Amino acid sequence: MAAAPLFHLVDPYGIDRSLLDDLCALTTKVRLLAKSPDGARFLLGLLPDRRAMLYFVQPSTRTFLSFNNACHILGIRTSEIRDASTSSEVKGESFEDSIRTFSSYVDVIIMRTPEAGQAARAAALMNRIPRPVPIINAGSGRDHHPTQALLDIYTLERSFEDRGGIDGKVIGMMGDLRRGRTVRSLCHLMQNYRGVRLVFIAPPQFAMGDDVKAHLRAQGIPFVDDARLADVIGDLDALYVTRMQSEWDTAGETSQVNYADYSITPDNIGRLKSGAAIMHPLPRGPEIHPSCDDDPRAVYWRQERNGMWMRVAILLKIFQADRLVHEFDLDAVN
Amino acid sequence: MAAAPLFHLVDPYGIDRSLLDDLCALTTKVRLLAKSPDGARFLLGLLPDRRAMLYFVQPSTRTFLSFNNACHILGIRTSEIRDASTSSEVKGESFEDSIRTFSSYVDVIIMRTPEAGQAARAAALMNRIPRPVPIINAGSGRDHHPTQALLDIYTLERSFEDRGGIDGKVIGMMGDLRRGRTVRSLCHLMQNYRGVRLVFIAPPQFAMGDDVKAHLRAQGIPFVDDARLADVIGDLDALYVTRMQSEWDTAGETSQVNYADYSITPDNIGRLKSGAAIMHPLPRGPEIHPSCDDDPRAVYWRQERNGMWMRVAILLKIFQADRLVHEFDLDAVN
Amino acid sequence: MAAAPLFHLVDPYGIDRSLLDDLCALTTKVRLLAKSPDGARFLLGLLPDRRAMLYFVQPSTRTFLSFNNACHILGIRTSEIRDASTSSEVKGESFEDSIRTFSSYVDVIIMRTPEAGQAARAAALMNRIPRPVPIINAGSGRDHHPTQALLDIYTLERSFEDRGGIDGKVIGMMGDLRRGRTVRSLCHLMQNYRGVRLVFIAPPQFAMGDDVKAHLRAQGIPFVDDARLADVIGDLDALYVTRMQSEWDTAGETSQVNYADYSITPDNIGRLKSGAAIMHPLPRGPEIHPSCDDDPRAVYWRQERNGMWMRVAILLKIFQADRLVHEFDLDAVN
Repeated sequence: MAAAPLFHLVDPYGIDRSLLDDLCALTTKVRLLAKSPDGARFLLGLLPDRRAMLYFVQPSTRTFLSFNNACHILGIRTSEIRDASTSSEVKGESFEDSIRTFSSYVDVIIMRTPEAGQAARAAALMNRIPRPVPIINAGSGRDHHPTQALLDIYTLERSFEDRGGIDGKVIGMMGDLRRGRTVRSLCHLMQNYRGVRLVFIAPPQFAMGDDVKAHLRAQGIPFVDDARLADVIGDLDALYVTRMQSEWDTAGETSQVNYADYSITPDNIGRLKSGAAIMHPLPRGPEIHPSCDDDPRAVYWRQERNGMWMRVAILLKIFQADRLVHEFDLDAVN
Repeated sequence: MAAAPLFHLVDPYGIDRSLLDDLCALTTKVRLLAKSPDGARFLLGLLPDRRAMLYFVQPSTRTFLSFNNACHILGIRTSEIRDASTSSEVKGESFEDSIRTFSSYVDVIIMRTPEAGQAARAAALMNRIPRPVPIINAGSGRDHHPTQALLDIYTLERSFEDRGGIDGKVIGMMGDLRRGRTVRSLCHLMQNYRGVRLVFIAPPQFAMGDDVKAHLRAQGIPFVDDARLADVIGDLDALYVTRMQSEWDTAGETSQVNYADYSITPDNIGRLKSGAAIMHPLPRGPEIHPSCDDDPRAVYWRQERNGMWMRVAILLKIFQADRLVHEFDLDAVN
Repeated sequence: MAAAPLFHLVDPYGIDRSLLDDLCALTTKVRLLAKSPDGARFLLGLLPDRRAMLYFVQPSTRTFLSFNNACHILGIRTSEIRDASTSSEVKGESFEDSIRTFSSYVDVIIMRTPEAGQAARAAALMNRIPRPVPIINAGSGRDHHPTQALLDIYTLERSFEDRGGIDGKVIGMMGDLRRGRTVRSLCHLMQNYRGVRLVFIAPPQFAMGDDVKAHLRAQGIPFVDDARLADVIGDLDALYVTRMQSEWDTAGETSQVNYADYSITPDNIGRLKSGAAIMHPLPRGPEIHPSCDDDPRAVYWRQERNGMWMRVAILLKIFQADRLVHEFDLDAVN
């Protein structure tokens, strides 16, 4: 179960079960530690001499705040570039030179960029310079958002902690499955769990991509494509709802969606199993009615906060401070 | 004199004399503590594991910096959203969902927004979710800016500390009284003091609003409306000068103002009492000539800095760390 | 060798050899301290109760990050204004009132502005108010950028540390010498060193300004004007390459430059002395080919990181914490 060290976190491909279990255990420990003043101060003393750069040139509130506060929980100082117009790129600097510049001043670069592949390019650059720093991908265009996938895994594990975790569960994914990178990454990570079955509920134009389905078949992960929510809602252990990403529309595809078929509302929420988990990466549109927020099955707000704790765990792992956390006696602070 | 706990600070209505006195005493203590390295480090150790969110989508330098540095004085880590275009609201997220998201990551939200009532909506949301955090209103459109009113009260109290405080004083308010929320809030808080008399000096189109005057009458606070500066200047214990807020003009109202009648200049400053306090919420326009800055009666720069100390006091009160400050022996560091 | 105290740092004129030597020694000490966890935590504990304002209304990534992280290394808390549109200047506030406001909340103002002379104006204001804070010029229009000149001096000294430092060296400067403030400032500081010779390599339209050349003549510093790279490359101990600053073009001056004559490439880099230092203030254009980065003579990335260490040294000096660093026993942490 001792997972290998983590340096860059660029995509979900290298993430195996031992790393997942390690990060989930670490996330829980951190979350519990932070509840007490002594635990919170212990965390704050772990990495006070480390400095992070948040390079977020694609608009993002949630992921930015989540990472920034994860850093702050560990005492890490943060610098941010959030507006490409304040960057040296306006003076014609190459992407690689900009990234190398950032790396000169800090110990880790957390980056969110509009173009696919940029985090991978940054990591490749780091691997060939004398003073590399870790690259954490906080969303690179439409391709990857691995920390979102990790917090989703943690939320599932936590939801099922009394029922054997993710292994053997039936997980529905609903909404814009074609263009939502969160569900795509999550599908990928499912190969680390045994006996999972997936159920896809999406408008035809936003059906899960063939590449993902081919991957699932190759991994032997059973899935139901093209399910209707009304038919399957009672069978699900978790339902991962996503937003229609109309910003990618080229011909008004979203306007043709009948939202009633892809939404959780006070009318159908009662048909979910009592222990089911309703998840959503947020921000949400009309696909989950706000009056559902108080239902005990609605875990999306907890999922959001889990993101911060998981990012703390990732930083601990990258800076090899995880051992200190694992060793810390929780009973000493409670 | 033990004031009730403070959670949200949204408007000036719930602020009573015991809270005012408590906050003023705390502000003075903090200000004196910060003068010595030991005192400064004591303050820095009070709330290092707390995190604040500064959500400032209305332009503001002064209030932003004042709050940000107040947080830093106490060791509080800060995250900021200052550009609505980097926010998830661009993805159509509701105001309530955005605020709840912010609250997921931090321990207090300090917000300045263009629309009236938004701080109140945020506080109402907090009151119905499982993990509420305090909301501090740092200016919500034209309605409220309670921390400005508190720093104004503190500046008055400090100016009169050898003369029995605010009770019994004559306080002039000059300039754009109709649209200036600071003077409106300050009038409201005057009901907490005994024997105060107010004198309003304003162009007719910017006279103090009838709602405020009705409130003063109901509270039995005497005021003179429509006074001329030249007639009353020698009677005032304090003169609160404000800027003509031309940004709210609908038909060039400001251009009709004869500034000479509503300004402090080297020509008339000498007619003020020797111990009078000239205040201004800043930024200023032509209504106070910069050459007046060196006059000992000009306390507006001190007032500005008082804002930071008062905001430290408010944060201490909200996080219930005020007792530690009250107990700290100042002599030990001087 | 005990240098005088430093308060404002606005231009390179008052910088003498004792200050240069002191800052360089301090920079090296800081750089070595930061390599060990104990040293890094010692630095972090030096100025935790100080607060800095970064007022950067001219786009800058490098200088901003360098200063921000220099502050963080010393535990200094930072606030930033990077977008003039979030400033009170939009409400018509004067530059002096804005600067005085910033000074109310912090212990040092680090500023980068588009107009020449603004840092000097800010320093002049500080010198006449009751609570002045130091002003550090991080670039004021085309006139001065003194911390860049200091980091350049440090990089030269470090490159020659086994060969007697800068004294007696031959230093080439290439590119846009007319409009590049870094080379202009560096020329000025050369009067502090003995036996230095300068070699200017520039397109005629971007030749070093007559004012700088007059100054060098007055100081008795020999220089070669209008040299060709191919003729002198083998004689240089350092070559300071600069970018053509096309953003200042009025009639497409840059488009007439034959870059081949003002560039370092794999073809000519081998002609430099084995111990020569290739410097560049970055960001770079085509004047240094990226494949040169791995050459041991290419020190521009190290130069960039030196900037952060030098800024730590400047802050230590301004806050008079330099003695503590000089006294710290490096052997205790290694």
